[in-house]
Amino acid sequence: MEKTNKRIVIALGGNALQRKGEASAESQQKIADETARQLAPLVMDGYRIVIVHGNGPQVGNIVIHEEAINTDDVPSLPLDSCVAMSQGSIGYWLQQALTDELRKKELDNTVVTLITQMLVDKNDMAFKNPSKPIGPFYVTKEKAMIQSATRGFVVKEDAGRGWRRVVPSPKPIEIIEKDAIKVLINSGAVVIAAGGGGVPVFMTKDEGLHGIEAVIDKDFSAAVLADLIDANKLIILTSVDAAMLNYGKPNQQMIGKIDRSKMQSYIADAQFSSGSMLPKVQAALQFVNKPGRTAVIASLEKAAEAVDGNIGTIIHF
Amino acid sequence: MEKTNKRIVIALGGNALQRKGEASAESQQKIADETARQLAPLVMDGYRIVIVHGNGPQVGNIVIHEEAINTDDVPSLPLDSCVAMSQGSIGYWLQQALTDELRKKELDNTVVTLITQMLVDKNDMAFKNPSKPIGPFYVTKEKAMIQSATRGFVVKEDAGRGWRRVVPSPKPIEIIEKDAIKVLINSGAVVIAAGGGGVPVFMTKDEGLHGIEAVIDKDFSAAVLADLIDANKLIILTSVDAAMLNYGKPNQQMIGKIDRSKMQSYIADAQFSSGSMLPKVQAALQFVNKPGRTAVIASLEKAAEAVDGNIGTIIHF
Repeated sequence: MEKTNKRIVIALGGNALQRKGEASAESQQKIADETARQLAPLVMDGYRIVIVHGNGPQVGNIVIHEEAINTDDVPSLPLDSCVAMSQGSIGYWLQQALTDELRKKELDNTVVTLITQMLVDKNDMAFKNPSKPIGPFYVTKEKAMIQSATRGFVVKEDAGRGWRRVVPSPKPIEIIEKDAIKVLINSGAVVIAAGGGGVPVFMTKDEGLHGIEAVIDKDFSAAVLADLIDANKLIILTSVDAAMLNYGKPNQQMIGKIDRSKMQSYIADAQFSSGSMLPKVQAALQFVNKPGRTAVIASLEKAAEAVDGNIGTIIHF
Repeated sequence: MEKTNKRIVIALGGNALQRKGEASAESQQKIADETARQLAPLVMDGYRIVIVHGNGPQVGNIVIHEEAINTDDVPSLPLDSCVAMSQGSIGYWLQQALTDELRKKELDNTVVTLITQMLVDKNDMAFKNPSKPIGPFYVTKEKAMIQSATRGFVVKEDAGRGWRRVVPSPKPIEIIEKDAIKVLINSGAVVIAAGGGGVPVFMTKDEGLHGIEAVIDKDFSAAVLADLIDANKLIILTSVDAAMLNYGKPNQQMIGKIDRSKMQSYIADAQFSSGSMLPKVQAALQFVNKPGRTAVIASLEKAAEAVDGNIGTIIHF
């Protein structure tokens, strides 16, 4: 197979960056090193790679830090700015790790992170139903209500652990910096873009772009990006080996090679849980909307095999 | 004059981003809008622009937030990661503002921020003499000494206002992501790079790149970047109209057009104060090391005139 110039978008889940109890920069950079060792062979094989990473735990910690002090001189920054900050820190860790790994293999591809704005629709239904918990827990309802009254936060009780702000998770539509991604990928650079799903922005005719306090599912953003660069493959790397039929039941079964319509029928059968596997499958199907496109859902530890199409759930048109 | 394809590096000082008492994202984005209105005409005129911004007040506030909570689950991130975060937030504000301003002029250039690592020399003398105060004030010497003992911070008393961490400010040597900057600028994109002077990294033969807790003078980084892309002009925008002779004295006099060797003689005469104008003049001279190169030191409000060479201190070879 001629791999050169084949374009691949890789969506990296949280486990590619931060494991439980390992939130320090040092720990996250060590995990980034492991991730880089998984991905570097793909660059060596001639694939052109764009990486879209999640940012759940990282932006969560940024928000907790920001909320810890909120004065005129040292104000808390809003969530859109925090997402941009997380693109900075995570992108830095990943690009440093991958640059090092490529240099060890005597490859000189530049690895670079682009701060990326993602257009969303202000009329997206998600804005009517904020659902993603973010930031610190408020121990009492009263404290939560103060945040609600003074900051306009929507707060909800979180499974008995206290109260917490919830934000909308709208669908990504378009990448504002799309031309830069295309130019760089065509030049042979490894691009890290749309981190955390991208900084959510909407557009008005008169005033242009505005950030909005929301978070975007990074797998859907990876699907948008893969479509944008007309990638050959979208690889969604996560903590499990594949999508499963009858997950958690005695007759649980891994889904291997499958076509689009069959996978859609599994969604109709409610085979995938809405909080975890369902959005990955939906993002995969969103990308695989024409012949020649493949989406793979596989575990991070097997990135290279996933790209070669021998492992995980492999969805064809 | 044929302006098309002329390459300009613009170094934006702190006043281009944050004014005293206006630290909120909303305020900083409004100032970014003003800055964008200054810079958009240059793009319209066909100049290819790379923007290097400072990050002093912004990374200061990020560090204060990070230091406010430091637990296993929510650890403080080190300064190199904080610089990357500031590249994310400031870059996002600037690229959004400039994208909007260009679209109003019906220009479709992509504006994009690159997370940028800047190589420094681990043997730079600056590491022996940390001098840049950063982060929160420690009210008592005892509190400062605890940070010193537990975190390895170098702390100094800051003009009677309490104790504070100081970090080194090494000279920038090389931009790790240089190829991406070149590719993008050649494509017509407006590039924001080396924000805050870049994330300081050093390199070891065996292990590759390592972040280091330091801050880099953004004017020197802009000079490195301008040399890298063989820019025609380096424009250092600041809060004053020009470099001055006999600054603050009755015979104070603006320096207009001047050649490199004359400007060097003024440095030898100690005409410029080490904390403010001297590094700008030194950065300008570092760039103007061959015929055809010009560096301008001017006020942000007159960016367009500064580029046209009619205002500010204009240093030729």
